[in-house]
Amino acid sequence: MNEPKIITSLTNDRVKAIRALDMRKVRKETGLFVAEGASLLVTARDHGFVPETLVYQTGTAATGIARGLVTHALSAGAEVLEVSEAVLTKLSSKDNPQTLLGVFRQQFAPPPDLTSMSHSDTWLALEEIRDPGNLGTIIRTADAVGAAGVILVGTTCDPYALDAVRATMGSIFAVPIVKMDRPQFTEFAKRWPGDAIGTHLTARHDFRSETYRGPQLIVMGGEGPGLSTAVAAVCSKLVKIPMAGNLDSLNLAVATALMLYQVRGPQLKL
Amino acid sequence: MNEPKIITSLTNDRVKAIRALDMRKVRKETGLFVAEGASLLVTARDHGFVPETLVYQTGTAATGIARGLVTHALSAGAEVLEVSEAVLTKLSSKDNPQTLLGVFRQQFAPPPDLTSMSHSDTWLALEEIRDPGNLGTIIRTADAVGAAGVILVGTTCDPYALDAVRATMGSIFAVPIVKMDRPQFTEFAKRWPGDAIGTHLTARHDFRSETYRGPQLIVMGGEGPGLSTAVAAVCSKLVKIPMAGNLDSLNLAVATALMLYQVRGPQLKL
Repeated sequence: MNEPKIITSLTNDRVKAIRALDMRKVRKETGLFVAEGASLLVTARDHGFVPETLVYQTGTAATGIARGLVTHALSAGAEVLEVSEAVLTKLSSKDNPQTLLGVFRQQFAPPPDLTSMSHSDTWLALEEIRDPGNLGTIIRTADAVGAAGVILVGTTCDPYALDAVRATMGSIFAVPIVKMDRPQFTEFAKRWPGDAIGTHLTARHDFRSETYRGPQLIVMGGEGPGLSTAVAAVCSKLVKIPMAGNLDSLNLAVATALMLYQVRGPQLKL
Repeated sequence: MNEPKIITSLTNDRVKAIRALDMRKVRKETGLFVAEGASLLVTARDHGFVPETLVYQTGTAATGIARGLVTHALSAGAEVLEVSEAVLTKLSSKDNPQTLLGVFRQQFAPPPDLTSMSHSDTWLALEEIRDPGNLGTIIRTADAVGAAGVILVGTTCDPYALDAVRATMGSIFAVPIVKMDRPQFTEFAKRWPGDAIGTHLTARHDFRSETYRGPQLIVMGGEGPGLSTAVAAVCSKLVKIPMAGNLDSLNLAVATALMLYQVRGPQLKL
């Protein structure tokens, strides 16, 4: 069996290469991303993901979950690095230090096949979403309601950014993520076999009073601009979430969760 | 009328004092907090708040909203500081640079009077919540549904932390925030005239199938531990949000929003 490599130098090339995955450009070039913490790594393993590289801090993987993760990675042929606390501190995010991290290959899914979709499927499309924390929270919620996948439309933040991955709480390994540019998405949405449901500030229908024909495609715009005209135009229903407050606005992850629970509600039981 | 003071030194005492409000300890000692950006400052003004200090970057307040905010602050007798770009960069958060910020006095509200509560009131209590971004998002949602206020129970993160204030999008100036320790809250909840509704992983009732007697008190626990036994015991109803996913967990701001919309729903119209 494979053995862990020991690294104590902060200027080691592997350390620098992993650290560089903080940058979106490097994530794009390499197709890799970082997930921090035992909980995310367990979820990854449970979904059949093997890290390209597993990094653990010296002295923290002798027993328990960490040991299981190291054994799994070694037996699957992954690179395993045992590093000093100083190296791990350099590699991991300052606000949320962990003793374990994994480098994984990004997996974008192909567009779903419109000809073989089940009536009970719900997909979620997000146009031009900007905040990685919100995106991660939305992927987590999509998982919680059993949505079939998430489609990122146009220029969006990176679902594989550290903040996004962390906010998914592991759902990044469970929920298919598809990327489309806007023309590709509008063509796709026009051919959607059920309701394509957009939320729009000018809509006159309360999201709670509509029925949604499956398979459902929920379409959400960015928090500032909302849906583009082109994308709103291909929705079969436009709805609005009522508010009572002074400021009349909701966080996008909150608004998306309300839509997901409304649409998926009949399929969710205690 | 009052005049702006011009500051260009990064080591100016006022600059250092404002910068120090990044620290929870200093916010506690001074009772002050920082709100960044024109949008938050306009919301503050619209709710009758006058900053103790308004800071703007040289050359950015000659016209428009910024000028209006400066005039308002000067005429209300506030300290107004005109600072160089370098000073403002030092004062404001790196990930979200702004040309304006205000220092305000924190306002915690007294506990609501249980003898004069309306049946249509909804209060929200949060026990031991840890994430300032989530707390801010929850305050924003509470505002959006017209909740009467938010009660922070026990040791929680600071609603006046910069991340929390920013996530409220201004609702920090609109929603009454009350602090209670746990014994104080359990006494309060026992005397609550309507339903005190806790969400709990062991609950057997779907949150969507219950009716909630007003005034309603929604009680949410922290994302990891959930409600403490003591607090769960004083709830008149314990409910659960159903999930379908692999990971079976929701972000706290999302779960709270689902509860708020369920409970406040009948009072919300387009």
